Amino acid sequence: MINNLTIIGVGLIGSSLAQALRQANYVDRITGCGRNEENLSRGIELGVIDDYFVDPARAVRDADVVVLAVPMGAMKAVLTAIRPALKSGAIVTDAGSTKGSVVADARGALGDSIDCFVPGHPIAGSENSGVEAGFPTLYRDRKVLLTPVDETNPEACKVVEEMWRQCGADVDYLSVQHHDEVLAATSHLPHMLAYSLVAYLADLEDYDEIFRYVAGGFMDFTRIASSDPVMWRDICIANGDALANFVEGYRDQLGEVAAAIRAGDANALMRLFQHAKDKRDELIGSRK
Amino acid sequence: MINNLTIIGVGLIGSSLAQALRQANYVDRITGCGRNEENLSRGIELGVIDDYFVDPARAVRDADVVVLAVPMGAMKAVLTAIRPALKSGAIVTDAGSTKGSVVADARGALGDSIDCFVPGHPIAGSENSGVEAGFPTLYRDRKVLLTPVDETNPEACKVVEEMWRQCGADVDYLSVQHHDEVLAATSHLPHMLAYSLVAYLADLEDYDEIFRYVAGGFMDFTRIASSDPVMWRDICIANGDALANFVEGYRDQLGEVAAAIRAGDANALMRLFQHAKDKRDELIGSRK
Repeated sequence: MINNLTIIGVGLIGSSLAQALRQANYVDRITGCGRNEENLSRGIELGVIDDYFVDPARAVRDADVVVLAVPMGAMKAVLTAIRPALKSGAIVTDAGSTKGSVVADARGALGDSIDCFVPGHPIAGSENSGVEAGFPTLYRDRKVLLTPVDETNPEACKVVEEMWRQCGADVDYLSVQHHDEVLAATSHLPHMLAYSLVAYLADLEDYDEIFRYVAGGFMDFTRIASSDPVMWRDICIANGDALANFVEGYRDQLGEVAAAIRAGDANALMRLFQHAKDKRDELIGSRK
Repeated sequence: MINNLTIIGVGLIGSSLAQALRQANYVDRITGCGRNEENLSRGIELGVIDDYFVDPARAVRDADVVVLAVPMGAMKAVLTAIRPALKSGAIVTDAGSTKGSVVADARGALGDSIDCFVPGHPIAGSENSGVEAGFPTLYRDRKVLLTPVDETNPEACKVVEEMWRQCGADVDYLSVQHHDEVLAATSHLPHMLAYSLVAYLADLEDYDEIFRYVAGGFMDFTRIASSDPVMWRDICIANGDALANFVEGYRDQLGEVAAAIRAGDANALMRLFQHAKDKRDELIGSRK
């Protein structure tokens, strides 16, 4: 049970966490914090948070657990602001999509207090933003990855792990670097592809005509291109090397596909499609 | 009202058409045809078709309207087989995803009888295949594109247009070439990207680990990579030039994205993501 929880950044991720913990009766009081007061007031109206502060230092004063659910580019400033205000024994965790940059920010901002910081990442989301986009079952049966570093207090890890378990999530531990590579492949790369596809088509001469005839496959494929641009800009900056490697590797593969199409190489295309279908069907099977 | 309808290829597309027309009471008798007798028997059990033949020539003997819902690579052989068996006044249409190759096949196979052929393409589908994958609302509020050529009998167009209207679809007319370019961009290109992504990741060394952490965005993004490989191989062969141009254009755009990530160019990335998000959100708005 968490007595005082402070969530900094009450968007989709923070709002869903608050709602899930309330539904589990695992939290007594939730304080929100963010720059958009309208969003925070709405959070109180909806019962997602109990009170709020715009100043992060004030928001964390009584907190037993602090969750940072802000864009990656804001992590360092928030950590720096809250450090002097944290009470002794307070635990800080985050929900950022890359972990290397957050750990570096936390080391810089928290100094010797780095032991209270548990780097975390819930693998869940949607293309919608804001407190109203949150819902209590977002984390149910989803993975949450924790990437503690050498200094991380194991007791703090256990608290954060239990918090996510209470939301219905399945918690795994990964190294920081491994996390960032795996996520670059499974999440960051597909986002780049979807954004690029919409932008590419939108810049074609007859794009109005093209967009008139899109079907369900296209809408599903590009759903993630409606995601928050600030969040994704920050992820690209934070995980640039791993992500650029995958984008380039994929681009090269696409060059081979184009050559096979150009050459009318039916066998090569058939092999590629069958291979991909087999792997994805296997993946569906393993997720059931 | 169609008295005798023959559907050659009773998969997702053919089965859904049959079910929609039955629900609309717009057809009296439906004859199925295909190479897989088990699938056809199941079609009779399910009430999707009334009878079936494995031989296309026998299947079309009494048909007023014949719909070809076979992979593109099978079009020419089927058209050649049915030509001598068609009764006078019979109308033939298809549901192929590219139109240039089907029109060429139809010219070659039907000769002077090309006037009875109405090239068509319902912009609807799913990643599932077979008679059981069909459902009667697949075409509701979806677009069906007809691409008649100079010789096409306008009366035949009207019959095919009304058939699709009865399924709840919205029918538009496009030129063959324009159709193939638009579809290469909106449908064929995304399929190439999804197949390529799954294949690319599946060939990485630690793909088991990578696939363990995929989230909903990835599953939506790659849904179309579970599509029928034969169908997509045939589409690539049939619409190769237009598709290869788009794959290459997209690949070049991706090179620029990789360079921006590599350079940490936050402004360029932000512009790209915002542009894509704006366009996609606009697209969602226009589809409501």
